[in-house]
Amino acid sequence: MTIDTQILTALRAAGDNGVAGTELSQKMGISRAAIWARIEELRSLGYEIEASPHLGYRLLSVPDVLHADDLLSNLGQTKVIGRDIRVFEETTSTNDVIEKLARDGVKEGVVVFAESQTKGRGRLGRKWMSPPRRGLWFSILLRPQLSPTAVTQLTIAAATGLFRGIRAQTGLTPEIKWPNDILIGGKKVAGILTELSAELDKVKYVIIGMGVDVNLSAGEFPPELRKIATSLKIETGQRVNRAELAVNILQELDRDYQRICSGKFEAVANEWEEHCSTIRHNVIIHMGDRKIQGRAESLDTDGALLLRTQHGHLERIIGGDVTLEK
Amino acid sequence: MTIDTQILTALRAAGDNGVAGTELSQKMGISRAAIWARIEELRSLGYEIEASPHLGYRLLSVPDVLHADDLLSNLGQTKVIGRDIRVFEETTSTNDVIEKLARDGVKEGVVVFAESQTKGRGRLGRKWMSPPRRGLWFSILLRPQLSPTAVTQLTIAAATGLFRGIRAQTGLTPEIKWPNDILIGGKKVAGILTELSAELDKVKYVIIGMGVDVNLSAGEFPPELRKIATSLKIETGQRVNRAELAVNILQELDRDYQRICSGKFEAVANEWEEHCSTIRHNVIIHMGDRKIQGRAESLDTDGALLLRTQHGHLERIIGGDVTLEK
Repeated sequence: MTIDTQILTALRAAGDNGVAGTELSQKMGISRAAIWARIEELRSLGYEIEASPHLGYRLLSVPDVLHADDLLSNLGQTKVIGRDIRVFEETTSTNDVIEKLARDGVKEGVVVFAESQTKGRGRLGRKWMSPPRRGLWFSILLRPQLSPTAVTQLTIAAATGLFRGIRAQTGLTPEIKWPNDILIGGKKVAGILTELSAELDKVKYVIIGMGVDVNLSAGEFPPELRKIATSLKIETGQRVNRAELAVNILQELDRDYQRICSGKFEAVANEWEEHCSTIRHNVIIHMGDRKIQGRAESLDTDGALLLRTQHGHLERIIGGDVTLEK
Repeated sequence: MTIDTQILTALRAAGDNGVAGTELSQKMGISRAAIWARIEELRSLGYEIEASPHLGYRLLSVPDVLHADDLLSNLGQTKVIGRDIRVFEETTSTNDVIEKLARDGVKEGVVVFAESQTKGRGRLGRKWMSPPRRGLWFSILLRPQLSPTAVTQLTIAAATGLFRGIRAQTGLTPEIKWPNDILIGGKKVAGILTELSAELDKVKYVIIGMGVDVNLSAGEFPPELRKIATSLKIETGQRVNRAELAVNILQELDRDYQRICSGKFEAVANEWEEHCSTIRHNVIIHMGDRKIQGRAESLDTDGALLLRTQHGHLERIIGGDVTLEK
């Protein structure tokens, strides 16, 4: 833990009682002047910290910024995901940053957030709008012991984790649309982009990128997206604390990743199916030039969608654009 | 074509008749002095070029080096593979070089050769010995319109291409061992390492790395490899021209890649099965901690091995270490 993380953790633990500068100084083994300097630094980032002679320091409010130390301090003990968090003010795409870290041999679990992305992307190179401080744009590095064909399991796990994180923070109950979208009231509020580097039978690393539209107003979506996209702010009618949401999501993702790693994909898949708007529906799936129609039945053991076609046979689908049949 | 390529092509076409400096100069639109300078440069690389007043220039012999221009000049018109060839004196691993080119957006078909690799690797991070000028150590960048699950098709295609290239150059008939080895008399003479970068349902790029033990003597193999590895020189009893072999292999690989791209995997698979020492045999396959036993029946449409297990059901195997059951 950095000094900032330690200070924020102590301030949070103390709550309204506050904590004395002397106490912080002893706990961390640095001078009171050094503590003061860090407090000033945190204030400059937007943390409202009161200093009073009898109560010491009190944390009054936290700013709407993502602060790596603060996220770490709130995250607590996760097993893999979020042990290392890095926040960029702006980047091309957080998946690109993670890819560089992956090639440099960085351990799995590192999470990269960007306050904005200049080249955020969705599946198949599609653009993903990521305006400053309006959402959570982040990516995670994983190095699972899976064959490339089983990597779809991770997208399924990411979707359930994202689902639970959003539900815990907002009280909303989203739906999951196969393979990689989270919807509220039929409109997309979050997406997942899974990328992998592999040998034929062994994954080298997997990057799970996520975008969550948190505090965008309706007017901030381009006209062509307004009918199909929404944000948590639009759906709840109020601003949503991004840092808290991020922590909720990372904790849930960590839980699901553990389930995958210990071979409990079935439990994840069951939960996923329960909240999935695609399963048990007649759908049309576009895959490049190909179009296939049928009833989405369930997931197979690798996480692929099993579709019962019009001709009655079961087809295994690993990706595509789904529309529900009217 | 570079000037060197044009000169070598003209010299080859002229054969024993030779070609006059004036003619070369006119053809290429550069001065006779410039032609002379290039000839001197080629000589310094080991090309034996005779210059006589009445015959002009004659190519007497080519050195045992890989020269990008020379390879291009001999390759002729391939559709994709080898339109761009780069030769390194030494590199870590040619797959690494191709990966960098892939990320820089270089077109598919580029081939990187290295005269030696300091960190040549085989499947699952295993070492691949690649001493200077004793073999062909090279990698190819492909950007096929395939789903990640179908990438095994490319390894199958690479194996058949490699098989035909070796047979054409040496007269030997190797066998293919699933998934990625070429054997002669039961000993490994070449291997293939396929790596990919992908989204769940779409390949971004595939790197096919190959190592062919061409001119190693028995004594150059470490003792632990002597019983299981061999070279074309050992098997034919004579040195094999590496540049000619490289050209043969690239032409065959290009042919097979075209077959895959036009949906003719079945033709490739049939040829592969005909020369495969694994199919129709009882085998033991080790996959990490797992061991599975059965009869290798055939390839499925994605290129995976279909194994009839002892319990009678068909299992789909995408990678592993195969040993024939005694």
